[in-house]
Amino acid sequence: MATKSIEKLTDYFYRFPGIGKKSASRLAFHILEMEKNEIDEFVKAVYEVKNNTEKCTVCGNLSESSVCDICSNESRDSSVICVVEDNKDIIALEKSKSYNGKYHVLNGKIAPLSGITPDKLNIKPLLTRVAAEEIDEIILALNPDLEGETTAMYLMKLLKPFGVKISKIASGIPMGGNIEFSDIATINRALNDRQEQ
Amino acid sequence: MATKSIEKLTDYFYRFPGIGKKSASRLAFHILEMEKNEIDEFVKAVYEVKNNTEKCTVCGNLSESSVCDICSNESRDSSVICVVEDNKDIIALEKSKSYNGKYHVLNGKIAPLSGITPDKLNIKPLLTRVAAEEIDEIILALNPDLEGETTAMYLMKLLKPFGVKISKIASGIPMGGNIEFSDIATINRALNDRQEQ
Repeated sequence: MATKSIEKLTDYFYRFPGIGKKSASRLAFHILEMEKNEIDEFVKAVYEVKNNTEKCTVCGNLSESSVCDICSNESRDSSVICVVEDNKDIIALEKSKSYNGKYHVLNGKIAPLSGITPDKLNIKPLLTRVAAEEIDEIILALNPDLEGETTAMYLMKLLKPFGVKISKIASGIPMGGNIEFSDIATINRALNDRQEQ
Repeated sequence: MATKSIEKLTDYFYRFPGIGKKSASRLAFHILEMEKNEIDEFVKAVYEVKNNTEKCTVCGNLSESSVCDICSNESRDSSVICVVEDNKDIIALEKSKSYNGKYHVLNGKIAPLSGITPDKLNIKPLLTRVAAEEIDEIILALNPDLEGETTAMYLMKLLKPFGVKISKIASGIPMGGNIEFSDIATINRALNDRQEQ
């Protein structure tokens, strides 16, 4: 029986993603043990995230200004746009340090059963960009699942008339993974997309 | 590359117990997706934990008043004190619904190597209680590890002169656990503390 205020905060943490009952309780007790000024700083950081973050007006990426760091970076190749579902995908791709072009964030993927129809996604601004900017290639970096593939197909249809090169990131056995424990769909894809050496 | 404010908040969450890099990032993004009023309520709960929680002046348990709910509950047996290391142990014991006496929180266990000597623990007030109140039994509910056992032995020595009954919670193979996968120390304890049926 913790105090009411600890239980209340535990409930809040429990609503956070990936936080179970026990973790939530541990976090609430951690807050209790923090110094008052540490809590103040933490709360300040919470509000800053909410207040300072907006969406880049060009690509839809999270940004602290109207145009994000990537879109405004002139040393990046502006002839290539990598289309992703989510901001977090940009973070992962940037970490890999294997891409130096621009991005476009769809904010989801087509999933009619969940009510996400193409008009709910950030697709129109992508077409506007392709029409207005000098784009050589569009890389579709959508997750290789049913909705991701559907979205990729849909985009390919829309983009074809622009005469731009369209590519899709490779899918197959992950590096360091092994064939024995890969699922059938992955093995299937790995075989179909095999590349001549 | 998330925005600076998201990275800052991620760093804060990363300092929380049991939160890894990825969870911390997920939590920061969750804050970003929360409505402003939800954030306000969450922050309020954070401050309430800090401002409303104090230590019970009798037993050391966390409380929202100077005497905790358990100490002030007259339907509980005040002739038995269960000594625990930490407030969280009380929560666990209360959940089991198998104890109806009072508690005493030591706020740790003797661990000289970490600088926790007996004088740093909430031991003196326990002796005062045993001397002043009518206590029939002290149950030592310390964790069955080296420091817990040391602390139990130390307390037994101190409490013996009061002529009060002293007991220790049982230790052995956990319910639903199995002997095959239990560690040597646990099997040892289970055998030594076997009870005639």
